[in-house]
Amino acid sequence: MQKLIKKRSRKAGLSPGTLIHIGEKKAETLKITVMDYDEAHFQEKEINTVEECFAFKNAPGVTWINIDGLHQVEILEKLGECYGFHPLVLEDILNTDQRPKMEDYGDYLYIVLRMLSYNDKSSQIETEQVSLILGPNFVFSFQESQGDVFDPVRERIRSGKGRIRTMGSDYLAYGLLDLIVDNYFMIMEKLGETIEFLEEKLVTQPVPETLQTIHQLKRELIFLRKAVWPLREVIGGLERGELALIKETSRVYLRDVYDHTIQVIDTIETFRDMISGMLDIYLSSVSNRLNSVMKVLTIIATIFMPLTFLAGIYGMNFKYFPELAWRWSYPVFWLVVVLISVSMLLYFKKKNWL
Amino acid sequence: MQKLIKKRSRKAGLSPGTLIHIGEKKAETLKITVMDYDEAHFQEKEINTVEECFAFKNAPGVTWINIDGLHQVEILEKLGECYGFHPLVLEDILNTDQRPKMEDYGDYLYIVLRMLSYNDKSSQIETEQVSLILGPNFVFSFQESQGDVFDPVRERIRSGKGRIRTMGSDYLAYGLLDLIVDNYFMIMEKLGETIEFLEEKLVTQPVPETLQTIHQLKRELIFLRKAVWPLREVIGGLERGELALIKETSRVYLRDVYDHTIQVIDTIETFRDMISGMLDIYLSSVSNRLNSVMKVLTIIATIFMPLTFLAGIYGMNFKYFPELAWRWSYPVFWLVVVLISVSMLLYFKKKNWL
Amino acid sequence: MQKLIKKRSRKAGLSPGTLIHIGEKKAETLKITVMDYDEAHFQEKEINTVEECFAFKNAPGVTWINIDGLHQVEILEKLGECYGFHPLVLEDILNTDQRPKMEDYGDYLYIVLRMLSYNDKSSQIETEQVSLILGPNFVFSFQESQGDVFDPVRERIRSGKGRIRTMGSDYLAYGLLDLIVDNYFMIMEKLGETIEFLEEKLVTQPVPETLQTIHQLKRELIFLRKAVWPLREVIGGLERGELALIKETSRVYLRDVYDHTIQVIDTIETFRDMISGMLDIYLSSVSNRLNSVMKVLTIIATIFMPLTFLAGIYGMNFKYFPELAWRWSYPVFWLVVVLISVSMLLYFKKKNWL
Amino acid sequence: MQKLIKKRSRKAGLSPGTLIHIGEKKAETLKITVMDYDEAHFQEKEINTVEECFAFKNAPGVTWINIDGLHQVEILEKLGECYGFHPLVLEDILNTDQRPKMEDYGDYLYIVLRMLSYNDKSSQIETEQVSLILGPNFVFSFQESQGDVFDPVRERIRSGKGRIRTMGSDYLAYGLLDLIVDNYFMIMEKLGETIEFLEEKLVTQPVPETLQTIHQLKRELIFLRKAVWPLREVIGGLERGELALIKETSRVYLRDVYDHTIQVIDTIETFRDMISGMLDIYLSSVSNRLNSVMKVLTIIATIFMPLTFLAGIYGMNFKYFPELAWRWSYPVFWLVVVLISVSMLLYFKKKNWL
Amino acid sequence: MQKLIKKRSRKAGLSPGTLIHIGEKKAETLKITVMDYDEAHFQEKEINTVEECFAFKNAPGVTWINIDGLHQVEILEKLGECYGFHPLVLEDILNTDQRPKMEDYGDYLYIVLRMLSYNDKSSQIETEQVSLILGPNFVFSFQESQGDVFDPVRERIRSGKGRIRTMGSDYLAYGLLDLIVDNYFMIMEKLGETIEFLEEKLVTQPVPETLQTIHQLKRELIFLRKAVWPLREVIGGLERGELALIKETSRVYLRDVYDHTIQVIDTIETFRDMISGMLDIYLSSVSNRLNSVMKVLTIIATIFMPLTFLAGIYGMNFKYFPELAWRWSYPVFWLVVVLISVSMLLYFKKKNWL
Repeated sequence: MQKLIKKRSRKAGLSPGTLIHIGEKKAETLKITVMDYDEAHFQEKEINTVEECFAFKNAPGVTWINIDGLHQVEILEKLGECYGFHPLVLEDILNTDQRPKMEDYGDYLYIVLRMLSYNDKSSQIETEQVSLILGPNFVFSFQESQGDVFDPVRERIRSGKGRIRTMGSDYLAYGLLDLIVDNYFMIMEKLGETIEFLEEKLVTQPVPETLQTIHQLKRELIFLRKAVWPLREVIGGLERGELALIKETSRVYLRDVYDHTIQVIDTIETFRDMISGMLDIYLSSVSNRLNSVMKVLTIIATIFMPLTFLAGIYGMNFKYFPELAWRWSYPVFWLVVVLISVSMLLYFKKKNWL
Repeated sequence: MQKLIKKRSRKAGLSPGTLIHIGEKKAETLKITVMDYDEAHFQEKEINTVEECFAFKNAPGVTWINIDGLHQVEILEKLGECYGFHPLVLEDILNTDQRPKMEDYGDYLYIVLRMLSYNDKSSQIETEQVSLILGPNFVFSFQESQGDVFDPVRERIRSGKGRIRTMGSDYLAYGLLDLIVDNYFMIMEKLGETIEFLEEKLVTQPVPETLQTIHQLKRELIFLRKAVWPLREVIGGLERGELALIKETSRVYLRDVYDHTIQVIDTIETFRDMISGMLDIYLSSVSNRLNSVMKVLTIIATIFMPLTFLAGIYGMNFKYFPELAWRWSYPVFWLVVVLISVSMLLYFKKKNWL
Repeated sequence: MQKLIKKRSRKAGLSPGTLIHIGEKKAETLKITVMDYDEAHFQEKEINTVEECFAFKNAPGVTWINIDGLHQVEILEKLGECYGFHPLVLEDILNTDQRPKMEDYGDYLYIVLRMLSYNDKSSQIETEQVSLILGPNFVFSFQESQGDVFDPVRERIRSGKGRIRTMGSDYLAYGLLDLIVDNYFMIMEKLGETIEFLEEKLVTQPVPETLQTIHQLKRELIFLRKAVWPLREVIGGLERGELALIKETSRVYLRDVYDHTIQVIDTIETFRDMISGMLDIYLSSVSNRLNSVMKVLTIIATIFMPLTFLAGIYGMNFKYFPELAWRWSYPVFWLVVVLISVSMLLYFKKKNWL
Repeated sequence: MQKLIKKRSRKAGLSPGTLIHIGEKKAETLKITVMDYDEAHFQEKEINTVEECFAFKNAPGVTWINIDGLHQVEILEKLGECYGFHPLVLEDILNTDQRPKMEDYGDYLYIVLRMLSYNDKSSQIETEQVSLILGPNFVFSFQESQGDVFDPVRERIRSGKGRIRTMGSDYLAYGLLDLIVDNYFMIMEKLGETIEFLEEKLVTQPVPETLQTIHQLKRELIFLRKAVWPLREVIGGLERGELALIKETSRVYLRDVYDHTIQVIDTIETFRDMISGMLDIYLSSVSNRLNSVMKVLTIIATIFMPLTFLAGIYGMNFKYFPELAWRWSYPVFWLVVVLISVSMLLYFKKKNWL
Repeated sequence: MQKLIKKRSRKAGLSPGTLIHIGEKKAETLKITVMDYDEAHFQEKEINTVEECFAFKNAPGVTWINIDGLHQVEILEKLGECYGFHPLVLEDILNTDQRPKMEDYGDYLYIVLRMLSYNDKSSQIETEQVSLILGPNFVFSFQESQGDVFDPVRERIRSGKGRIRTMGSDYLAYGLLDLIVDNYFMIMEKLGETIEFLEEKLVTQPVPETLQTIHQLKRELIFLRKAVWPLREVIGGLERGELALIKETSRVYLRDVYDHTIQVIDTIETFRDMISGMLDIYLSSVSNRLNSVMKVLTIIATIFMPLTFLAGIYGMNFKYFPELAWRWSYPVFWLVVVLISVSMLLYFKKKNWL
């Protein structure tokens, strides 16, 4: 189950800008890949020492440096120094429980958001923090672990298809954001299927475990909401056209991502509504079952209590007890039993209990 | 039942502007109809190849091109090329799970909204995406399936009655929007009838199935809400008078549609309020019934348990048992039984249980 | 019971401005009364043909034309033509399910709101649409049925008391709005009394019918809210001082009506809060009663089950059964019965069940 | 119990500005006291005829005229005439069910708010309307009944301590507002104590009466909220510095009152949250008790029903009934009884019912 | 348990700016420590008389005066006089139930907020009011008790590491705010752990005490919310860059604190959502247990009631009772008993009650 909160206490009291990685160490080794391209040329390599990155600082094309794994703090420090990133930016990259946000530092934009993935084994949604730094001719992307959703963009750069090679770093950043948000739709589909399955089951056979699943879903939606809501503001801020680093031509694409984000938020709200409706259904189906249990009990008791009393009477040992000696007492007794039972059943029928 | 979510996963990772139709293929064949008119002349024809449309591009009158069926992607591509539509617009037309929105591309406006229809067979509301592209002298309308609510506008154009032939493309777009929103009222009427019927039934005979229907209604209202709420902003944006393509004279009409949209939203909210009230009623009627079941059980038990005990006593086989031999024991026993029963009944009467 | 929704489907697809009366025909005959006044003179008459109105168009004083009954569409058409009202205004007057709104058409203001009345026979609140058209020197008022709350204004005009004869058409419109809003207070008083009566009853004797009444009240408040909330914006718009037709001197009076509207809204919200509180009380009083029913059952069962078992034992027919032959078995049996009963009762006393 | 709504119906239809006192007549006699002061001099007197007030109109110092009791309409009329108050102001002073508001009439400000007091006898909160009129050199205060919270200000004026004698009428108005808001804190303390007491009781011994008290508290908070929320806007309006009558030096003090108002609102919201939490606790404690009642019943029934059946068997009169004649039947019977009872008890122990 | 409200009644009616300490006296002795530093020099001392502070008023470096304990009112008075603080500021420092706020007095800023700490003994969150006064070259901090979270800042000043010695008083104020907000994260971690523990327990063994803990948590979150929400506005106001006392270089740091505050608020809202979800789970688990209790009862009753009746029949003493004399009656009786029991059990199996 997703932890409610990450341990930040290690950091309390440290000077601002002190770099400490918060969160679990997800990747074993740190991997840095660089893609450098413009319309004409294209270069891709995996590098080992961070110093190799520095060469790209003043390269004419667009440079995309992707870093998987955040546990080697000194690498970030060196990068920050070379590219002149504010210490607080580096700190935020390492604090992996950030709320999605976008900060304009003039020379570069810092964007942090969450990448979602569905873990098939545990049937749970996992989140990872992705940080982007967008400069005039470079994009840095920082991820907690290897394996990401960015491959389609890499492929498009390699093949030179589409617009990407002819446009700047802002379009690249858009491409990465777009992939992350597109990925949310897949999570939504998974959740939608779970909810529809649950809805069906709720009608056919409601069991206490259903409640557990509903609660689990509710919990996940709370976390999704927390991850996606602020993104609206982030992408809205990028798209609004007040940032020098975002070119006019990219804005229409960012508006598209913005629409997708709103669609995801809409879907989350719809899911929340549906789940709260399902809880109501579950609770009243529990009440209904209690009702039907009680009816069975009441019917049985109402029929057999008078009968048992009757049988009890003729089990008494009074000396002067005329009925006991009568010839037809026993058959008459059975007749009375049948009469009482039938009239009770008719009464319950009329009351709609049967 | 309406799907919670449409499969978008096929699209993830594709270059923006890649045209893929999302949603079921609703229409078998694609149908393109063109209406070209101004105050003086009028022309209507069904065309087979998309190239025939191109002729109307620079026609002096207003051209309305209606396309039923979205599965032939290449037709859209050609149209887009000829008329200069942005690839993202074409992409959005094909993604049939759009949230209603309006986008200003300078030369043309792209409007997407949902058309609702009530399926009498399945007693469910169905929705279809309608896209409009409004240019200075043309309107494109894209629908998922054939059969629409636009016939009254066609009729008005053909007959030349009313204002429509004398006004521009913005008035035509208004006419189409107006029809779609007017159509919402019919859906609201259907829902209103269902709710009133349910309300009556809730009082006279609440059954577990009622709950199911309430849940169904709630679900449909969630979807309606999602379809109609954003429309407020869309039409508000058209009416506000900041768009070059909307003429001053059309604005008063758009304000009318805007009012209708708000009325529909109001009605949806009212329905939601009423349904949540009905759920409360249902739940407490279940509790009430449980109460009355338990009362019956308790009355029966409270009367017959002491009596059975009494009968049990005189069924005991003690050797020294004076009452057994008394002459009037048996009649006295019955007297006591009657006394106990009557006093119990009076007690329950006093407690208002009978 | 108030209909949830009015049939608008007859109108779907008609050209905008097509005049069709939506709603029931409430008045048998249509009645037109005219009042024309200024500081010096005063004239009042009931007229038969709409053409008689036209004479007042350019009269120097203020003309108030009140029309009761909306079913004669052609009368509206003629009026509209003579005074130059927009077709959409006439359409809105006839669509009697309008949301309260105010529209500025430059030469005149169109105001639509709802008049409430309490039907003593059915104990229900009835609503009627009132439309006002305010021009520089005239006010039109349209009502669905005869019999209204405007008499006090008529009286003031006739008597010439107060400010009304010395002020313009905007003050007359204010006077009419003020009467309608003042009338809301009377409805609020009625509702307040019902709620207080219900609250009292809830404590003394909660019955399932109470729930029905609570639901009924809730429903009425939903409708009232829908009728009054938008009025805030309407009157706020009139009062804000951006309309040429509203003179500075009338604004302070409109602010007064605005305050009243807010007070009515406040009261509606208070009532809603109280009613939801009452529902909670009702539901938990049902639970409490269930609890007390179950306690009675449990006490009876807990006392008599062991006793009946005991009596059953001594009713057994074992041959070797020493107690049966003992001399004091029977008195000892009774002693045990009393002991068990008393200890059980003490136990329940301690548990606070008695 | 506080009335939900005051009778306004007497007023309906009257000309605006018609003076009628709405609400109960709280004070027997009307009392007018005047304080006139500046830095150097100070004068205080109780006056009998309203005409005596007029002398202070052009007095150089600050004049505070306090009027207790609103039932003598003609006094207000005279005051209004002399000081040039708008008829609607006088009307509002008399309508004692006003929502707190502030109105700027240019020459003077009209402020209306509610004074709260706790009635120890009925354990209820009582509210009274206080109206202030703030002019350049005078303050009028109107109260429904005698006995108020203004004495500390009087004392400060008399003694000349603090800033009050050196500052203008706006500071005096601030002083009065401050006292009224400070007084709210005392009401909050009372309520806080009641809530804490109730919370404790809820845990130790929840009884149906608790629910009644919770409902009562909820009701009172609804009214408090209605009385205090609008005050925020009122004092915010005074403090914002757009009013000519409020001097710069007084604004920092008004900001202080504003903070207090927000604190009171915060506390009311906290109380509402807590009370709704208490209702949840109460309801689930009722459910819990039902559960424990049912457990007792079930345990008793589950143990004694099989036993009674067993005893019933050996009470049968079959001729061929081998066990009856066995030597050890009766002791074995008891053994079985003990075995069944113990195993049942162990079962319930395991199920955590004991 | 945290008091709902602090006694303010002692203050009612006093002149504004009258200094009275509201709240418990938390510290025994009052302690004043002074740190004075600039890039080059550094001085730290604990002082005994307040007059020693005055020397630092015009010192060139940054002076931080920290005062623990608020009960000696005269010390504040002297400080206020020397530094020219407004009496209302001093009053607010002493009123320890302030809502977080920031006030700009031109020469200095007054900031008040709450410091949270977790009391391990009582397992409760405790809050303390911290007031900061930020001037051009000084910072005052006032705390209710000794022992605070400011030590890391002191250490940084002493060691001269980081930026702190080179920057102004605004950066120092930031440092203090940062520490307080960082401290909130620790409280959040504690709460998060409690909630996760509770969640687990809820599933495995729900007991009435759980409800008590849920209620306790809810209560604490209400108070946390009250303490943290307004902080958003406070720090937002500092960061927005409209205050002369906040230098441009410090703003990026304040933005960081602002982000942290929003993260804390987000977490509180998440916790609230989760707790309300837990309440639902708890309540329905109670219902579920009631259901299972009732099922046991009903199964037992449904099996044994018919059987007891049967046994009762053959315990009757009718003279003419053919079965009694039959040879195989008794074995057949047992057969019937087994048949009835088995068929009942199968019935319950089919109904999913077993």
